[in-house]
Amino acid sequence: MLWATSPACTELETHVLDWLVEMLDLPSKFLSTSTGGGVIQDTASSSSLCALLAARERATNFASNQRGCDGKLVAYTSSQAHSSIEKAVQIAGLGRANLRLIDVDESFAMRPEALALQVETDRRAGLVPCFVCATVGTTSSNAIDPVGKIGRICREQKLWLHVDAAMSGTAALCPELRRIHRGLEWADSYCFNPHKWMFTNFDCDCFYVADRSALIQTLSVLPEYLRNQATASGAVIDYRDWQIPLGRRFRSLKLWFVIRHYGVEGLQYHIRRHVALAQQFAEWVGNDERFELAAPAPLNLICFRHKGGDDANQTLLERLNQSGDLYLTHTRLTDRLTLRFCVGQTNTEARHVERAWKRIQQEAEKLGPK
Amino acid sequence: MLWATSPACTELETHVLDWLVEMLDLPSKFLSTSTGGGVIQDTASSSSLCALLAARERATNFASNQRGCDGKLVAYTSSQAHSSIEKAVQIAGLGRANLRLIDVDESFAMRPEALALQVETDRRAGLVPCFVCATVGTTSSNAIDPVGKIGRICREQKLWLHVDAAMSGTAALCPELRRIHRGLEWADSYCFNPHKWMFTNFDCDCFYVADRSALIQTLSVLPEYLRNQATASGAVIDYRDWQIPLGRRFRSLKLWFVIRHYGVEGLQYHIRRHVALAQQFAEWVGNDERFELAAPAPLNLICFRHKGGDDANQTLLERLNQSGDLYLTHTRLTDRLTLRFCVGQTNTEARHVERAWKRIQQEAEKLGPK
Repeated sequence: MLWATSPACTELETHVLDWLVEMLDLPSKFLSTSTGGGVIQDTASSSSLCALLAARERATNFASNQRGCDGKLVAYTSSQAHSSIEKAVQIAGLGRANLRLIDVDESFAMRPEALALQVETDRRAGLVPCFVCATVGTTSSNAIDPVGKIGRICREQKLWLHVDAAMSGTAALCPELRRIHRGLEWADSYCFNPHKWMFTNFDCDCFYVADRSALIQTLSVLPEYLRNQATASGAVIDYRDWQIPLGRRFRSLKLWFVIRHYGVEGLQYHIRRHVALAQQFAEWVGNDERFELAAPAPLNLICFRHKGGDDANQTLLERLNQSGDLYLTHTRLTDRLTLRFCVGQTNTEARHVERAWKRIQQEAEKLGPK
Repeated sequence: MLWATSPACTELETHVLDWLVEMLDLPSKFLSTSTGGGVIQDTASSSSLCALLAARERATNFASNQRGCDGKLVAYTSSQAHSSIEKAVQIAGLGRANLRLIDVDESFAMRPEALALQVETDRRAGLVPCFVCATVGTTSSNAIDPVGKIGRICREQKLWLHVDAAMSGTAALCPELRRIHRGLEWADSYCFNPHKWMFTNFDCDCFYVADRSALIQTLSVLPEYLRNQATASGAVIDYRDWQIPLGRRFRSLKLWFVIRHYGVEGLQYHIRRHVALAQQFAEWVGNDERFELAAPAPLNLICFRHKGGDDANQTLLERLNQSGDLYLTHTRLTDRLTLRFCVGQTNTEARHVERAWKRIQQEAEKLGPK
């Protein structure tokens, strides 16, 4: 899949990804007209892997691609980061033992001082730190890592900083929620998933890099049957060199339709509505003495639990999900079973959230007094 | 994307991929009811990467996932294999220097004796051979590697054998063309792309493994928020552990529709028609003294060239492609520019192939006498 295979497919993708830089007020270095640019990947897992590979190559001056890994490269993320980082570290040949899961604070965000300390320890042990993944909105509890502080450490230590904002990034459509991206100017790469919270059908992950040449140099292989004038001119983008597979779909078209259909204001309206509904739910939870919030809820994911302990929460979870009335997912926070309620789908209305909370209360009633 | 996320999505995929084992008469070990099974990937590049990762882990007793690569693992493919193998070797941390491009014979197929020799040389050098990719229908010239002979070497040497039949695999729908898969019983994994020559929209690559546990053990990471009863029971398939990304699309649905729409006999009819049209084209080329065939043409790809040398062929290629009447791709075979003509699209008819050949003859006319 070269530019020449379908120029429109590539050109529209570049165009729409530049639109999103403005719409989310991302750093301008992610624009295609700058040193960087964006590309649509299938999932945030693939973006993290591509970011890690570029980090690996930059740290070894592209020797890993040539001679393979040597067991000395180290990657960092928080203990609350998505499991795809662990998977990427395995795939890229660094090894799970060389992934450091940095401690988090009481709001489940990465502790920058713990990161700095670990990097120093690893350097002293003769290892080669190369990659940090910070999360804006962790899967488990929607925690937001302090990207600015982490970024300064990465800059000092010459580490590639990737920021994973898979679900939460969409919130930055609203100026009053852009605080989630504070510090993003330090990032080497960034991704968020319009297929999660921006009304776009799966699969659609937007991946940005500040220095596209690092990514391209990492992933480009050019056999004779792919050589062509457009590529040789250097004037076009071959997105195959920005991703793992060679072939690709025309995914920017659906994103173009979503943006044209809702408009920026329409998207903002829905995001604000989702956040408000989730915050309303959080308030109800806080006002019911049988329940407690299990983590800060900055956006649209509410982590909560019944005060009756793990067994009570397990029973609640199973009964509610089996009823078919609503679907809760779960996680463990500070080793306690935690229920997760998320508002983010296109057709979710206030009445659905109200009814969900009533059903949760009904089932809590049936548990009886603790 | 767990089984529980959408049971139908997983179950239909398993079902349709089992259908294809019968339809192509693939070894029964690739059936989900056996030790193996199939999964839909986006492209053959991703299948090759997954196969290589499983090979890497099997060869190191899963130590690479844990401790990372050590620069000693070696992979093998022919000098005519697709560039995605080189890309996979880089991504997986083996390093390009540890990919051996084995010599080919006069029909551009891998020389098994050269493979055996290289494996021996590498073992003596203290390296760890782990993976061989054989190709059934190379991208460049549609060459078919001797899978049986290669497979015996792999079995003896305990190497993972992956067979890449991206475009050509579809031909095995026709019993009289199944010779292309001779020796496939030796393979650990196999893939072909219904999106290339089986009337299925991109993306759809079918990837099979003989031992699914090796693949799953390589790619599985299970955080708390993905734990669930169905997965814990061991009775269901979580395809996220068979691929790089976590999320996935419902791609089996389009494959189901294609198979139901055409039926096995309908698919066979079209494949036979394409092969016949391509062979007719090859005959015309062979009968025109200005042209020559550049490689054997076992199926639907014809490699040919004007006898006037690289410049003449470059001129032909540019003029024909710029005319918009047809589109030829090119390659280099024994360092000579070679034109490629492929018949495989849904609506290609005899009249298109006839007209293409006439246009090629017209442009050859304009080149004048050599």
